[in-house]
Formats: sequence, structure tokens, C-alpha cells
Amino acid sequence: MVSVESLSLDDARAVIAAGEQKAQENGQPSNIAVVDHGGNLIAHVRMDGAWIGSIDVSINKAFTSRAFDITTKDLAANAGPGDQFFGIHGSNQGRIMIFAGGIPLRRGGQVVGAVGVSGGSGEQDQSVAEAAAAAINGK
Amino acid sequence: MVSVESLSLDDARAVIAAGEQKAQENGQPSNIAVVDHGGNLIAHVRMDGAWIGSIDVSINKAFTSRAFDITTKDLAANAGPGDQFFGIHGSNQGRIMIFAGGIPLRRGGQVVGAVGVSGGSGEQDQSVAEAAAAAINGK
Amino acid sequence: MVSVESLSLDDARAVIAAGEQKAQENGQPSNIAVVDHGGNLIAHVRMDGAWIGSIDVSINKAFTSRAFDITTKDLAANAGPGDQFFGIHGSNQGRIMIFAGGIPLRRGGQVVGAVGVSGGSGEQDQSVAEAAAAAINGK
Amino acid sequence: MVSVESLSLDDARAVIAAGEQKAQENGQPSNIAVVDHGGNLIAHVRMDGAWIGSIDVSINKAFTSRAFDITTKDLAANAGPGDQFFGIHGSNQGRIMIFAGGIPLRRGGQVVGAVGVSGGSGEQDQSVAEAAAAAINGK
Repeated sequence: MVSVESLSLDDARAVIAAGEQKAQENGQPSNIAVVDHGGNLIAHVRMDGAWIGSIDVSINKAFTSRAFDITTKDLAANAGPGDQFFGIHGSNQGRIMIFAGGIPLRRGGQVVGAVGVSGGSGEQDQSVAEAAAAAINGK
Repeated sequence: MVSVESLSLDDARAVIAAGEQKAQENGQPSNIAVVDHGGNLIAHVRMDGAWIGSIDVSINKAFTSRAFDITTKDLAANAGPGDQFFGIHGSNQGRIMIFAGGIPLRRGGQVVGAVGVSGGSGEQDQSVAEAAAAAINGK
Repeated sequence: MVSVESLSLDDARAVIAAGEQKAQENGQPSNIAVVDHGGNLIAHVRMDGAWIGSIDVSINKAFTSRAFDITTKDLAANAGPGDQFFGIHGSNQGRIMIFAGGIPLRRGGQVVGAVGVSGGSGEQDQSVAEAAAAAINGK
Repeated sequence: MVSVESLSLDDARAVIAAGEQKAQENGQPSNIAVVDHGGNLIAHVRMDGAWIGSIDVSINKAFTSRAFDITTKDLAANAGPGDQFFGIHGSNQGRIMIFAGGIPLRRGGQVVGAVGVSGGSGEQDQSVAEAAAAAINGK
């Protein structure tokens, strides 16, 4: 048997609240999703005016970051043509996102879930995801 | 051109909050999802301890109720063997749910979105969905 | 944060070994799969001569039992025409199995994973799954 | 009529055991999967701590190596932009993996199955897959 820590709904809401605040500062409404230790969705919000195509993207950026314990930005750097993981975006029934906006959430060095953000440019999504992740990773 | 009313994220959160309260009273942690006028997800929560298989079910009960402007309980009554819509659950890439827990949300007689609940028995899901829907439908 | 127990690979192997022994006694080679707390596959075996169509079925019976914390046999009793969950087999991208052979695995009353068996009649699959589950549930 | 050699469950377990040992030496927990002559899964293990996104990847690296009787590393060299097989990863319902870690298993010059490994860098996966394959290919 193994004992693992995972995020609660309260944790997920704190992550989302931090992300929403940053998205508002950026003036770019976003989708923000949080998954647990098992990669399963805990909570998702789409801010008013955010893209509907980003619902799936945000949920799957969060999934990807937990699935491989890596930011989707770092995965992207290994998943382009000629890179060691090129083609990984075709695995897991299309759930692997290879652009910025997904970040693993950690407690005591262990991954306990992940956040995924989609709604703007790669830089914007990354900045919102980093602000969201700081609700857990900085504690 | 047509003008449509749809739910905001604040509306969705009010729906979810009302549902969560009922689920806690029932002692049955649930997944609660809200979709907008376009059938697209606005917000989802999985309460601590709620089933992971119900993530998909709650989101798709909400989708189904907006997709056909009907409660999934009423759709169920028409979707069994021998009924006029038997087989409809095979349409829409498996997104049509034909058991209780999905309810359209209305404003001024117009459907503006829907809520979907999954986490317990059909009766429990229906009671949580009704409490959630009352945040919009009763106003 | 929530703290959860989940199965290790050693646990999964003990479950599979117990299932294999029963399948051999039954003279019915089987597929046996074990998922963890998050519903994710830990281990799978297909015994020599077992059906290839049962690979997917065994993995998804295990998933289903964790997804809804219920045996697939009990779920089946609620998922037929006219029942409260009729149509649930269309959810979760076709991963919900509604016939016998999937059993949640528990430690101290908490679900820590699940086992799924496919390879024979419903009765045979259930007997193998029960023998497999006893490696965890009886301890 | 044709007569084919294929792997038994015992063979698959020997392959997995050899792979596990190498993965432990590498300090990188991995998913290891073995498919038979028909490309169908015989056995899979996810070592404690290995990525959940690698479940699908390991199984499909094994499938790919049998599907085209080629290592996924060699396939990768032909599947990038401008290469003769670019786009092949979109075939077979997303089951074709085009990065290192899948190796065909042979007996007497004939392919009898394949192994797929996912859990670390391309180099790590390849080294684990080679160690695993040696349980069959070297004999």
C-alpha cells in the first residue's frame, strides 16, 4: 500500500481564485482547471468571455502536467519535430497538450495534482498558471 | 440576428453553491456541472469523496439537458426500449445521458443553460439538481 | 489537502496471483487488471488462451468499480432498461462496464483501487474477481 | 494455413522482469507492456511512482513495434516532417508511437511480439526496452 497526498476541493478553489485574479489583471479571460493526484478533474471554471475551445485545453493541460509530472511548457520543449518525445501529443486519446499553461502542484516535493490554463497567448496562459500554482507550490 | 440570454460564471457558481448545500444535507458528495446557452461547460466541481466516474456524467447530464431543453429524467422516460427516442444515448459521441440529474435553466421562459449532477442514486441526484436549478429557475 | 491510501504494484500482483489461481481452478483463462485509487491501471495480465476482447473489458471493469465504488455486478442491477442508471454504459467514453467481474478493493473501509476480470461467463468472472479481491479485502 | 510463434504470459513476465531490473538500476520507475504476435496486450506493469500518462504510451509503443515490426526509435527516424512516414502517428486511432522505447521481440528471425517502455527520457526508455527485449531476442 502507498500513502499519497492529493488536493481537496478547497485547495482547487484557492488555485482557481489565484488564477482568476491574474487573468483579470492580464485582461484575458481564461479557462482554469485543476486535477487531483490521479489526474481526475476536481474543478473547472470558464471566465465570462473566455474561449469555448479552451475548456478541453485547460482540463487536458492539467491532466498532462500530472500525467508526466512536468509543466506543459517544458514538455513542449521536448515534443517538437526531432525532439525525444515528438508524437507524444497523439497518445492518451488526444489528452496530451504540448504548449504552455499546465503546471504540476506539489506538497513536500510530491506531486499532488496540477493546474491547466487556456485563454490567451502562451505567455499569458503561463503567467496565469504560475499565479494559480503559487497558491499551492509556494506554501 | 438573434439575441440570447446565457449564464455568467457568477450564475454558474450560484447554481453550484445551492447544489453543494443540498448534497451536503443528503450526505452524498456529488459532481455538479453547469453549461451555458451554447451547451458549453462554464464550471464544474467534484466535492471531496465524490465518484470520479461522475465527472463525465455530471458534465454530460448538463449538456444533454441543454442539448434537448429537457430534464434527463424526462428524457429517460422516452429513451428506453420501445420508446420514441430509444437509442438517442448513442448519439453526440456518447454525451447524451438518459437518467435523472440534469435540468435546463430558464430565464423568462427561455433556456439559458443547464445543470448536471452525479454522485448518488437517481433520486439523490435529482434532488441536488433541483436545489441547484432553483438558484436560477425560481428567480 | 487530503491523504489517501492506494495500491502498490506488489499489492496489484498479489491480487492478480490470487485471481489467476482461481481462474486455473475454473479452467477458464482470464484477463485480470488492477487499477489504483485514481482509477489508473497498475497491472494487467492475459493468461494463455484468454480472449483478446477481454483485455479492454477487464481494464474497464476495474476502472468502473473504482469510478463508482461499486461492483460491476451491483451496478448492472441498476443499469438495465427501466433502472435508475440505464444508459450509464454510454458515459466515460465507453469505459463503463455493466456486467459482473469488477470489484472495489478496500483498506480500512476506504476504496484504494479495484480489480476487473474478463474471460468467461459472468459467474466465472465474478468468482475469479472475488478470489482476487480477497487478497486485499480480507486483510 | 500458417503457423505462428507467439509469446506466452510466462515469456511476457520474463521480459517485464528484465525491464524492471534495468529501470531500477536507472532509478527511473517505468511502465512496461508486452504484446503478442497479434499486437494484443499480454501484460503490463506500472512500477510505483511511474507516470500515469505512460500507461497508454507503453502499451502503444509495444503495439507500434509489432504493428510495423520495427523499433519505435527507428520508426521515429522516418516519421518526422519531410520523412517518408510523416503523419503515421495519426493512423490506427492514435495508437502509433514515434519515439524510442518500443522493440519487436523475435524468435528464429520471426517477430513473436513486442515490448514497450515509458517512464523517463528517450534514452532511459530505450535502455529499459533493450534490457527487457534481451530476455527473448538474445535467446
